[in-house]
Amino acid sequence: MTRQQLSSFIRSTGSYLCVGLDSDPAKIPPHLRSSKNPVFEFNRQIIDATKDHCVAYKINTAFYEADGVKGWETMERTVNYIPKSHFTIADAKRGDIGNTSAQYARAFFETLPFDAVTVAPYMGEDSVRPFLEHKDKWTILLGLTSNAGARDFELQPAGDGLLYEKVLTSAARWGTPDNLMYVVGATQAEAFTRIRSLTPDHFYLVPGVGAQGGSLEAISKKAMNKDIGLLVNASRAVIFASTGEDFAAAAKKAAADYQEEMRRYVSTAAAAG
Amino acid sequence: MTRQQLSSFIRSTGSYLCVGLDSDPAKIPPHLRSSKNPVFEFNRQIIDATKDHCVAYKINTAFYEADGVKGWETMERTVNYIPKSHFTIADAKRGDIGNTSAQYARAFFETLPFDAVTVAPYMGEDSVRPFLEHKDKWTILLGLTSNAGARDFELQPAGDGLLYEKVLTSAARWGTPDNLMYVVGATQAEAFTRIRSLTPDHFYLVPGVGAQGGSLEAISKKAMNKDIGLLVNASRAVIFASTGEDFAAAAKKAAADYQEEMRRYVSTAAAAG
Repeated sequence: MTRQQLSSFIRSTGSYLCVGLDSDPAKIPPHLRSSKNPVFEFNRQIIDATKDHCVAYKINTAFYEADGVKGWETMERTVNYIPKSHFTIADAKRGDIGNTSAQYARAFFETLPFDAVTVAPYMGEDSVRPFLEHKDKWTILLGLTSNAGARDFELQPAGDGLLYEKVLTSAARWGTPDNLMYVVGATQAEAFTRIRSLTPDHFYLVPGVGAQGGSLEAISKKAMNKDIGLLVNASRAVIFASTGEDFAAAAKKAAADYQEEMRRYVSTAAAAG
Repeated sequence: MTRQQLSSFIRSTGSYLCVGLDSDPAKIPPHLRSSKNPVFEFNRQIIDATKDHCVAYKINTAFYEADGVKGWETMERTVNYIPKSHFTIADAKRGDIGNTSAQYARAFFETLPFDAVTVAPYMGEDSVRPFLEHKDKWTILLGLTSNAGARDFELQPAGDGLLYEKVLTSAARWGTPDNLMYVVGATQAEAFTRIRSLTPDHFYLVPGVGAQGGSLEAISKKAMNKDIGLLVNASRAVIFASTGEDFAAAAKKAAADYQEEMRRYVSTAAAAG
């Protein structure tokens, strides 16, 4: 999916919601546990219920790997079940020396059909470049994350700025706004103006709304650009909105509520643009 | 495996070699390709041939994930095939917010029986701690890596030192030499004296000997401590020493050559200690 296609899809749905399929087997509604594959059955119903209200799905690989081989089977079935209209993200936080990153890129872009994979920047350019070399695919590099640990390194002084700023500006030379996005946590709203000034044209994947407490309004007002430029992820706040038999309806309502709020910000951006 | 057990195992074998099972399916000897699972058959023969000459095996998860579900099956069979006497490392470079890192720890320490997993530090303490909380398991944190990209961030000034130094000293407060090791690349020999002064008691996992060009002698002289304190990894230089029908014998010889050289350094350390 190109940047323009993603932007058009966002404008037509009025939503820049990404639904995070952090489908912890321990939290699957009890009535699904007799299914042959409870996690896939859960994901299938969540996708059916939310697809009209979001533009992207993010699969957090950790929750699948925790189940080993069976978990990878579920991940494969899930990403193949997502409608082709939607942007798919492997939230995998990979990154290693070049020949190894090339294998990770193959895992998520060729063996599995993801549009994008999240990548950790610590090992530098040659650990990121193999992901960028896949045509029509996206690298989503960790910039400033939503967790408390962001203070330990990301927000520390590094040269003439902070480490995450150095990551943003360095990576902007390795990729382009057409194949590179950044992870910027919703809990970092005060930093969004600065981040947007450093990387005006890139999309951001924004986790941390909902369960982690970030404000959708604050982020949207500070960080939207001419393409909208945001994918805001909600995981637990949508998929576990209810853990009863009404879980899919509750997820649909949560996603529709996000869409309704987002539609207002998209309209405002369109009016201003 | 405790630090003392690992140190005793190294002294008794005279080897601190870790064999890296970066078993790229494209490089498996042609005569194995008719096997039901060529990669597992390759790994099985490599393990049989090298186990008397090494103390650890490192599975690079990327090379297995590139094959999807089948690759994870091969990884599971391989780690279960490794003798219980040997230290097993999932070279996975994982790291995410706390609830997600907890799932990765479960994947490698519970669902799979690895002794250790490599972890990326960018997201800070709460992304690392879930790995450290597993009793009798090891976290191997990226410190200073062997690739050219180490210059982009790891070797940049951060506060009153370099970023990788800040990572080493910060993490030394989160874990202990009994549950935390560091990845330090063999190509960084000139930095080992400084690194050992910052973290005198920790084990280092040292990749980059062999194909990447690091010197075993230089590293061993600069970085050994009273426990030996080193696991030196060789991947391609051992497992692909030959890609013909003699691959296992060639791997055995390559591993035995490392062991022979290492035994000299272990003896010297013992004499000095």
